[in-house]
Amino acid sequence: MDMKKFTSPFLVKDIRVEDKFWKERIELARNEVIPYQWAALNDEIPEAAPSFCMHNFKAAVKLNNEKTAKGTAFKEPVFTPRGVEALPEDLRNPDDNFYGFVFQDSDFYKWIEAVGYLLAIHPDAELEKTADAAIDIVCEAQQEDGYLDTFYILNGKDKIFTNLRDFHELYCLGHLCEGAVAYYQGTGKRKLLDAACKFADYVGDYFGPEEGKCKGYPGHELAELALVRLYEVTGEEKYLNLSKFFIDERGKRPYYFDKEHPQDIKNDIDDLRYQYHQAHLPVREQDEAVGHSVRAVYLYAGMADVARLTNDEELFKACEILWHLVTDKKYYITGGIGSTHIGEAFSYNYDLPNDTAYAETCASIGLVFWARRMLEISPNSKYADVMERALYNGILSGMDLDGKAFFYVNPLEVNPEACHEDERIAHVKSVRQKWFGCACCPPNLARMLTSVGTYAYTESENSLFVHLYMAGAVKMNVDGNDINIKVSSNFPWSGEVKIDVSEVNSELTLALRIPAWSKGYTIDAPDAYVGEVKDGYLYLKGDWTSVSNFAISFKMETQIIQTNPLVRDNVGKVAILRGPIVYCAEEVDNGKNLHNLYVDITKPIREDKTLIDNEEVISLTLSGYRQMPIDGSGLYYEVRDDVREEVSLKLVPYYAWCNRGENEMMVWLRKA
Amino acid sequence: MDMKKFTSPFLVKDIRVEDKFWKERIELARNEVIPYQWAALNDEIPEAAPSFCMHNFKAAVKLNNEKTAKGTAFKEPVFTPRGVEALPEDLRNPDDNFYGFVFQDSDFYKWIEAVGYLLAIHPDAELEKTADAAIDIVCEAQQEDGYLDTFYILNGKDKIFTNLRDFHELYCLGHLCEGAVAYYQGTGKRKLLDAACKFADYVGDYFGPEEGKCKGYPGHELAELALVRLYEVTGEEKYLNLSKFFIDERGKRPYYFDKEHPQDIKNDIDDLRYQYHQAHLPVREQDEAVGHSVRAVYLYAGMADVARLTNDEELFKACEILWHLVTDKKYYITGGIGSTHIGEAFSYNYDLPNDTAYAETCASIGLVFWARRMLEISPNSKYADVMERALYNGILSGMDLDGKAFFYVNPLEVNPEACHEDERIAHVKSVRQKWFGCACCPPNLARMLTSVGTYAYTESENSLFVHLYMAGAVKMNVDGNDINIKVSSNFPWSGEVKIDVSEVNSELTLALRIPAWSKGYTIDAPDAYVGEVKDGYLYLKGDWTSVSNFAISFKMETQIIQTNPLVRDNVGKVAILRGPIVYCAEEVDNGKNLHNLYVDITKPIREDKTLIDNEEVISLTLSGYRQMPIDGSGLYYEVRDDVREEVSLKLVPYYAWCNRGENEMMVWLRKA
Repeated sequence: MDMKKFTSPFLVKDIRVEDKFWKERIELARNEVIPYQWAALNDEIPEAAPSFCMHNFKAAVKLNNEKTAKGTAFKEPVFTPRGVEALPEDLRNPDDNFYGFVFQDSDFYKWIEAVGYLLAIHPDAELEKTADAAIDIVCEAQQEDGYLDTFYILNGKDKIFTNLRDFHELYCLGHLCEGAVAYYQGTGKRKLLDAACKFADYVGDYFGPEEGKCKGYPGHELAELALVRLYEVTGEEKYLNLSKFFIDERGKRPYYFDKEHPQDIKNDIDDLRYQYHQAHLPVREQDEAVGHSVRAVYLYAGMADVARLTNDEELFKACEILWHLVTDKKYYITGGIGSTHIGEAFSYNYDLPNDTAYAETCASIGLVFWARRMLEISPNSKYADVMERALYNGILSGMDLDGKAFFYVNPLEVNPEACHEDERIAHVKSVRQKWFGCACCPPNLARMLTSVGTYAYTESENSLFVHLYMAGAVKMNVDGNDINIKVSSNFPWSGEVKIDVSEVNSELTLALRIPAWSKGYTIDAPDAYVGEVKDGYLYLKGDWTSVSNFAISFKMETQIIQTNPLVRDNVGKVAILRGPIVYCAEEVDNGKNLHNLYVDITKPIREDKTLIDNEEVISLTLSGYRQMPIDGSGLYYEVRDDVREEVSLKLVPYYAWCNRGENEMMVWLRKA
Repeated sequence: MDMKKFTSPFLVKDIRVEDKFWKERIELARNEVIPYQWAALNDEIPEAAPSFCMHNFKAAVKLNNEKTAKGTAFKEPVFTPRGVEALPEDLRNPDDNFYGFVFQDSDFYKWIEAVGYLLAIHPDAELEKTADAAIDIVCEAQQEDGYLDTFYILNGKDKIFTNLRDFHELYCLGHLCEGAVAYYQGTGKRKLLDAACKFADYVGDYFGPEEGKCKGYPGHELAELALVRLYEVTGEEKYLNLSKFFIDERGKRPYYFDKEHPQDIKNDIDDLRYQYHQAHLPVREQDEAVGHSVRAVYLYAGMADVARLTNDEELFKACEILWHLVTDKKYYITGGIGSTHIGEAFSYNYDLPNDTAYAETCASIGLVFWARRMLEISPNSKYADVMERALYNGILSGMDLDGKAFFYVNPLEVNPEACHEDERIAHVKSVRQKWFGCACCPPNLARMLTSVGTYAYTESENSLFVHLYMAGAVKMNVDGNDINIKVSSNFPWSGEVKIDVSEVNSELTLALRIPAWSKGYTIDAPDAYVGEVKDGYLYLKGDWTSVSNFAISFKMETQIIQTNPLVRDNVGKVAILRGPIVYCAEEVDNGKNLHNLYVDITKPIREDKTLIDNEEVISLTLSGYRQMPIDGSGLYYEVRDDVREEVSLKLVPYYAWCNRGENEMMVWLRKA
């Protein structure tokens, strides 16, 4: 297979998103999330823990200027990582030290990435001015040699790259590259891109396969995929090579992290020591998805990038194996991954508890990154089905419908009493939070929403692959001519899709994903155009002169889903889905003690339009019953016929839960 | 009500335990547990973490002798509590400092208590000699003023009673009293009893309601019930008064523990701060069973003692309310209590997870202590039913059938893979352990087993209450005459009971508990003897001259039990019981993935005699099916008819699980 035949991903500016569902969310990102986050990065949200992100850049600038002005030697501060917990009394006027988590710089980079996407589709002079001014500060913080990480700049540059395992320099490099690429693509401005290249060059001089260079690799992966983006925009192969080096070096014996942390070497758990970092084995030998789930999928996405661009079939094979290890054994039906809060990690196979789940928003976002990259190599709808599931469910659940509050953790069952009383699930919040000390998820959501169109399509030679049916348009180049393909739909609520193709002077193949949830489809295109279905895609081929538009209709009905019985927590339970949307029961519709509800799947299901916080969604009403307590029978009693109350169960989209106050929620319902 | 009409509990020597079930366990305690524990207390078990218990006593003796010999001032060691984690390299030759947990002394006291019970029923000159020699060391460690806690003796006596909340001086006093009383009652030797009185006097001089005395109370309760035992054997009211003071002072505002730990005062959680210690409210006002469950039931037992002996109906009412709060809302069917490992504590109401349960062996033991004390005040079978359930299930599960290994934690569902892979249940062990750093449970089991007969009976005026039908005999005094009541049974396997009463010269009432599990009973005593059934007891009254023996037969059949539907983890599940015994499924009998088994409760249940590690038990065989994975259908798929394999489910007594190797276990089974 020639994996390189795929061109680079579409740019945000090549895609218009027109459907109500996503368009409103992009507007939310523009009007709510981005301004709020900018205020947060500048510690201007009175009720939130300070971020210190821009503070740290400014403190680094000040240090640079002092050095320049006074011409003195670099001052040597005490090397003490300081968390929020070690803050001085007056949080609003921190001194010129570094504050916050070691990876605090990355919050700005994620913000500027989202801003870059926004400016690509929606010019905004004021926002651009703010962004440019912020970029000026960041670039001024950069060292003359190219180094750029405020944690080490402020705490002692002599210590850089001494703790790749736990601190996050290369992760910050990754986000810098992603932000810089997006801002360049959105505005044409190179300043941050040049800074990213300069830091990447510095890193490339330090790390690499060549003799004498450091053989380390990121403790928190991301640089792998980010360096590929830098390569794709600059054409500089050195960035691709550096990414490939990080991937190939990872997990080799003796462990690089052991050299940094000899005190942690314990022979008895030799093979497990770096599972958290996916660095326990070379990536091509990994036979289970393990460790911190965000790190894992960022790595896997970078592996897919490198596999595609270096035509490395073995590496792609490793990605494919890992894909199945995740999605066949460690994957929530909402698109969530990472079942345990301990290490924010994958648990063992088939351990998918609903109420104690971690399922971090960022992990689902990373899964979508990975899925699109797999599609770029091998257009198989299994990747797109997962991508769609995560986008419409486990990612969107991370944000209130008003864009003002966020879940970091996305369980599939929430009992507020347990959240308040049970320290074992201290990680589960029963309502979304305004901001987080470790604020990785909200800016990650912002960059995902503002670039969501780029996940709908990929192209390869004269073929356009349509993975997601969001209404809008994509501009592609076929044999040197720009053509527009327009998609009309009311996804995710209806399976009707219309596609318009502007006149093409040569053959264009349209490969349309047939979603796994669809129980059939009808298409009105001429037979001559309609080809085979392969790997879940219907291929249409023609010059689109006699016919320039057609409709395809996917049968979108409710689906009642059960789980492989090896998943202990879902035995005897079903989940209800409709098209891409996973449904859940909420207390506000169904009363307390959702665990006493049983759904009768033999009865018809009613669909209604319902408003939740002004968003129109389709709700489902099912028949079932509620098991009632038996008065006076105490805690345990001899089995007897349950006292049952017939009920209608109303289900709403999972992503929209907890927008009507704190209450119980449950995805997996007991089957009557 | 006159609560004082009950006499003191029976002494171990007044009761003979003859049935095979308990007799073998007492022999195990004598032949395995007691010698092993003695070796452990002396750090002579190579494969176990050292206890340092006797080491600490000896170090205290050495310090005393040095002080005496040299006539110098008390040396002032650094006040540093040292845990096992801070041990010097050579664990086998510790220096003269204190090592181990702050409550390490109590391990000896629990051991000597068990030895006292053993010697009462089974003279053993060698064991007595060992015990006497150990007592000599302990008494030599006691300070001239009566103080006796090696942690403070070795670390700085000037700090005594400065941290009642976290350290365990008064807890150690409690165990000293209990051990001393038992050893005195078993051997007639007063030396340790005198030491206990001396320390109790010292404590009584320091604490009390009188002006100028300290208003503190134990952070870990136990002294309350132990001082009552000291009172009952010495007749000294001051010990009863001290116990009453501790109980009444507890939870008063301002909190005593706040005076010790002003830095911990946070207004926002004012009422919760000392829930862990049951010191958040005065005991008479507590409206939920909260905090560390062992501490809780030790306190409640002491409250019942004081209520009885001071005829305090309000205090008894508080006990009764707490009894229902525990047994109606926070009680496992095995007699386990304490659902969460965080704080080894009660969780919120109806939160009774099976796989993450704590259900500490010691907590069930404490529950039995409390139950008998409630029976001494108010003979109601609801107390005895719980006592029996805990004794035959949640307590015995704490020990291997060979008496050589122990569970600290007794969950109702164990998946060894989860125990190995999932740090969230690091507290759950899939096989019993040889010993524990915090070795509270094994010696607690030893003292429970060796005194088990004292839980079978209570007496009141001319009435004998028979709570448990273990075969054996009890000697009681009626109007100045010793009479013997002999019980024959094959409990817990058969409900047939024969009772012989030696000739009585006055009226004797026998009150026989009708177990809640019994679906009826037949009795062959003359009608003239048989009176009413009240609070679950059948009252027989007569002079037992014309009739001196009779039989009562309780219908012992399997019971299929379900749970109040408010318990989330047991919805749709049943537990199988037979008489006092709770059953479980093990992997060794039923294959892996017990969660895929469904039991058909409409089919007959077969009973068989089965050997488990040479113990003959009754196993049960039920009909049911196993839900099978559907090949190739992945993790999630549209609901379809399950693939089912008909199976016979074999169940064995819960207490006997994990005696045939590491394997899955499950009490609550899915109902077909």
